[in-house]
Amino acid sequence: MTDQPVTDTGVRDAIARLRVEVAALHAELPANDLVVWTAGNVSARVPGADLLVIKPSGVRYDELTPEAMVVCDFDGQLVQGERAPSSDTAAHAYVYRHLPEVGGVVHTHSTYATAWAARREPIPCVLTMMADEFGGDIPVGPFAVIGDDSIGRGLVETLAGTRSRAVLMANHGPFTVGPTAKAAVKSAVMCEEVARTVHIARQLGEPTPIEPALIDSLHDRYQNVYGQR
Amino acid sequence: MTDQPVTDTGVRDAIARLRVEVAALHAELPANDLVVWTAGNVSARVPGADLLVIKPSGVRYDELTPEAMVVCDFDGQLVQGERAPSSDTAAHAYVYRHLPEVGGVVHTHSTYATAWAARREPIPCVLTMMADEFGGDIPVGPFAVIGDDSIGRGLVETLAGTRSRAVLMANHGPFTVGPTAKAAVKSAVMCEEVARTVHIARQLGEPTPIEPALIDSLHDRYQNVYGQR
Amino acid sequence: MTDQPVTDTGVRDAIARLRVEVAALHAELPANDLVVWTAGNVSARVPGADLLVIKPSGVRYDELTPEAMVVCDFDGQLVQGERAPSSDTAAHAYVYRHLPEVGGVVHTHSTYATAWAARREPIPCVLTMMADEFGGDIPVGPFAVIGDDSIGRGLVETLAGTRSRAVLMANHGPFTVGPTAKAAVKSAVMCEEVARTVHIARQLGEPTPIEPALIDSLHDRYQNVYGQR
Amino acid sequence: MTDQPVTDTGVRDAIARLRVEVAALHAELPANDLVVWTAGNVSARVPGADLLVIKPSGVRYDELTPEAMVVCDFDGQLVQGERAPSSDTAAHAYVYRHLPEVGGVVHTHSTYATAWAARREPIPCVLTMMADEFGGDIPVGPFAVIGDDSIGRGLVETLAGTRSRAVLMANHGPFTVGPTAKAAVKSAVMCEEVARTVHIARQLGEPTPIEPALIDSLHDRYQNVYGQR
Repeated sequence: MTDQPVTDTGVRDAIARLRVEVAALHAELPANDLVVWTAGNVSARVPGADLLVIKPSGVRYDELTPEAMVVCDFDGQLVQGERAPSSDTAAHAYVYRHLPEVGGVVHTHSTYATAWAARREPIPCVLTMMADEFGGDIPVGPFAVIGDDSIGRGLVETLAGTRSRAVLMANHGPFTVGPTAKAAVKSAVMCEEVARTVHIARQLGEPTPIEPALIDSLHDRYQNVYGQR
Repeated sequence: MTDQPVTDTGVRDAIARLRVEVAALHAELPANDLVVWTAGNVSARVPGADLLVIKPSGVRYDELTPEAMVVCDFDGQLVQGERAPSSDTAAHAYVYRHLPEVGGVVHTHSTYATAWAARREPIPCVLTMMADEFGGDIPVGPFAVIGDDSIGRGLVETLAGTRSRAVLMANHGPFTVGPTAKAAVKSAVMCEEVARTVHIARQLGEPTPIEPALIDSLHDRYQNVYGQR
Repeated sequence: MTDQPVTDTGVRDAIARLRVEVAALHAELPANDLVVWTAGNVSARVPGADLLVIKPSGVRYDELTPEAMVVCDFDGQLVQGERAPSSDTAAHAYVYRHLPEVGGVVHTHSTYATAWAARREPIPCVLTMMADEFGGDIPVGPFAVIGDDSIGRGLVETLAGTRSRAVLMANHGPFTVGPTAKAAVKSAVMCEEVARTVHIARQLGEPTPIEPALIDSLHDRYQNVYGQR
Repeated sequence: MTDQPVTDTGVRDAIARLRVEVAALHAELPANDLVVWTAGNVSARVPGADLLVIKPSGVRYDELTPEAMVVCDFDGQLVQGERAPSSDTAAHAYVYRHLPEVGGVVHTHSTYATAWAARREPIPCVLTMMADEFGGDIPVGPFAVIGDDSIGRGLVETLAGTRSRAVLMANHGPFTVGPTAKAAVKSAVMCEEVARTVHIARQLGEPTPIEPALIDSLHDRYQNVYGQR
């Protein structure tokens, strides 16, 4: 696999920067208990090019240096890198091709989110932090097998009908998107946390729902006021 | 945001000391698995002034140096610091304004306590360590949206009817108070531990209640005899 | 609190050795997720004397140096040390006074064991590792308040009717004993692990019991053959 | 126990290499929360000889250096090493003797897998990652006592009827096999993760099954396409 030359200097610099960023973000997956062994991946869109930076396939998290990251085009084909790209690359690429506002995609099999996915049951919005981050229920996407466009298509179709940045792919696990790879990682962390908290709440009875108008107001404030300006 | 001058030397020294203490106490939140990402905050009352030291908004725990802490007045307005204060500052300030015995406030979304809060169900006092620390059930506060006095008011009203230093705000999460910020952090740790233990006990049947007179006697001993004099 | 002179050289050496050992064993409690904050303690009998080495009261685990440990007599009175002994010292002392074969005692509020204790329900022996270590069910001791002999008496009476080295004190938490403090710590770790595994097994149905004769044979082999001779 | 001379240079080199590898793989067991105290072991077949490298009995994970590993023959007898071999050595040896394609064996008491084993209930294949790694349900093996061939025989008989590399021995815990010790450790990690995820999914309802033809296709792709070629 020989690397293809990237002639645009801005794109070259962006790739170099995103290799560092995406490698560092992969460390958040085990640090936040979202993955075991090699089962999870983060990607970032390269600004100004139809390219993405992603984890190589089947490589453990402690070997994920910036140099180990691979660059693919939006057909999932390898453009730079010594190793085969993640087997989920086609799904990431499909999302970038169809949703120009997405700058980062994360996929894990985090335990509680995957448990909801195994029952194909959306996570109901019964926590203020869930209203903040997801603006409502976290929806379930279709069952789709790996190896063609079906995961990517299922994600894009499910995201079209929701404010949620997370989708639970049926019997499979969560995917999250965001304006940046870091935002998508944050959503993956929050998705697992709300999946776990609502699961535990439901074990001993029914959580009290939050009124839709209050969900709207919490979501609006969090997306527009929270954090540093 | 330019800093307002603090002219009293004693208050200046207290702020310097509390910046170090509150920054260090924030490290206890992830160390005790009470928070994910940036979702939790600790504050301390500044002795001799209507001021509090608190975490800036949306900043991750590993960036929380003493210098990063911010100082606010009891209307929640920034007095010292380069960053916007935690979006929960108004609730902390309301508690200090109305409860002069409170020297520290902690807010988290710790998983098991938040699960009880999602069902708006108090945690029953069925453990000796719960009698020790909380002197009875941990009560539920009202549903309140962020951004005005309603969280602070709900906390103060709920604390008025209980010996518990912890309150579960409905669909939101726990707040704890204490004579110092460290004591409030300890209560946050114990609140999550009893929320978890009683949840697990309840999953397979009904825990045996402890008689109220024994709860009183355990609480009295722990508050007055336990630890170093 | 001035130290009482220990004139016997052998006893002095044993105390010095046990201070190091007991301090190190306390680190196993948080490392094995058996305690939060300061809620747990380990003690060791001093060979050749009616003395025990134990943790001081209300001190955090990272401050537990050998020098911080305290020495008490079998009435629970402080003999050596600068700090008040653990508030559970009377219970430890009672056990040493009545059970000469016991060389170490551990008390925790580990989550799953405490959950069984809150329901006052023994843990049924449905795992080979439970037969190995405990030789049968883990029994429940009486409800007892701290501050007099009642916890110690409840422990000794419950241990008299079982092969188990662990007892779940009602609404309180587990105590374990062993020929050494290290063995008692191991039993505390195994007690929590079997409490957790059997809890999880029971959540989705009834575990299959193990025949009493097979429990006997597993226990006998493990106590007599396992490990290094 | 004096060491028996190994005269074949290739075998000697293989043993030296496997001592390092097996010692390092034992560190994965606590790192992946599969074991407490000393309860778990990894072995590797020595290529070109009827020998295996395994953990000594009752030794803690932080003392497991390459030199501490022991070498046994396929009757479970010690060939090299200063300590008694793991009490599970007979089971490992039986598997190597009867299944020439197996290069590594792992045994743990990991919590969720052991909970399924306590109910003697196979884990149903309702997750894509379970289809990937195990190709179907994870089966239950018979109840067998330690000390003779019955565990090894139960393993070999159960493995004969399944594509799964994991078997849950009744009331005991999981065993996994693989072409290498590393692959068997990976299966042990994945076995616990799917045991946990499916348990959690089942707590709130029934997971949706995956069609057998889709399980076949996922398993085939993962075994033949995933990872680096």
